[in-house]
Amino acid sequence: MGKKLFKNAVCISHNIISQVLKQGDIAVDATCGRGNDTLFIAGLVGEKGKIYGFDIQKEAIESTRVLLKSNNLADQVILINDDNRKMASYIDERPGVIMFNLGYLPDGDHRIKTNGDTTVEALKAAINLLDDEGIITIVIYPGHAGGLEELTAVETYLAGLSQRFFEVSEIRFINQINSPPQIIIVQKILGGAK
Amino acid sequence: MGKKLFKNAVCISHNIISQVLKQGDIAVDATCGRGNDTLFIAGLVGEKGKIYGFDIQKEAIESTRVLLKSNNLADQVILINDDNRKMASYIDERPGVIMFNLGYLPDGDHRIKTNGDTTVEALKAAINLLDDEGIITIVIYPGHAGGLEELTAVETYLAGLSQRFFEVSEIRFINQINSPPQIIIVQKILGGAK
Repeated sequence: MGKKLFKNAVCISHNIISQVLKQGDIAVDATCGRGNDTLFIAGLVGEKGKIYGFDIQKEAIESTRVLLKSNNLADQVILINDDNRKMASYIDERPGVIMFNLGYLPDGDHRIKTNGDTTVEALKAAINLLDDEGIITIVIYPGHAGGLEELTAVETYLAGLSQRFFEVSEIRFINQINSPPQIIIVQKILGGAK
Repeated sequence: MGKKLFKNAVCISHNIISQVLKQGDIAVDATCGRGNDTLFIAGLVGEKGKIYGFDIQKEAIESTRVLLKSNNLADQVILINDDNRKMASYIDERPGVIMFNLGYLPDGDHRIKTNGDTTVEALKAAINLLDDEGIITIVIYPGHAGGLEELTAVETYLAGLSQRFFEVSEIRFINQINSPPQIIIVQKILGGAK
């Protein structure tokens, strides 16, 4: 015993990713924010790996760049200040992990945030790009303004993916008040076997 | 990469339990069935550990006994052919793990099965008995006749547990047809810290 199994949605995403991402792998942080996820996966893939990090806000890209540099992990990261729906135009290889952490930039302008329509488009791009057996993690905030609608849009889209080719699982904390963040994990199944 | 993260609800319960249960620990299989979970946890706790296994059906207890003996894991298991709602009258110590696998006995009489009322009563007994930081895993079958009602009863009860003292998480496979089994995990939080 000795520790909480599921501390929160971000911890779960890190726990899962640390089980699959190895030195030398390619991964994407589709929503850099303040750079915490980018830093985490840059450490996992190491010097021989490659991370693509996207954010629509210049402030987020700069925060992420500073965080990576101060941890000596900037060399393996390509930061792209553009819309993550365009990720395929920047990436010509197949990432094994693509992370999404939705909502707004922490300590930033809360009016600029993801929404159901843009997130579903970005997920489509991610699913096309993802390597066989790769995973997408999505941390989503139903307690934020508009967050519940975004969650519903994401769930509706992902529930429609064929179970022959994708496994979609959702982890919810069912006894917490105030709509805690939850996590959805998409795994692309090799060859469609089930 | 190389493997499916979340093969099914039973695999998830085993994966989680293997992270917390150690040699010498005490655990409970509240629903022995054909003994697969009992066997799994008997192996984890080893010769110095102790497992209490319950099933209301004599046929299940006998199947479990045969399976344990054929794997040389019978010595650390106490099999009890009685209602799991009475578990406190058989156990005078604090188990770190209590497993539930609901529904009917595989290849048995499908008319004899758990239901919402009896399962909630058994869960109350389990929660009282559980050690600090211990976990309860519940595999539940909404696709079975009456299974959705049982799931709703269990969710309603567990959603009412205080988040200061319990963390309740639920994992669902949201793109599968035919209502696949899902899993709920309850962890008792030490000292009620959150």
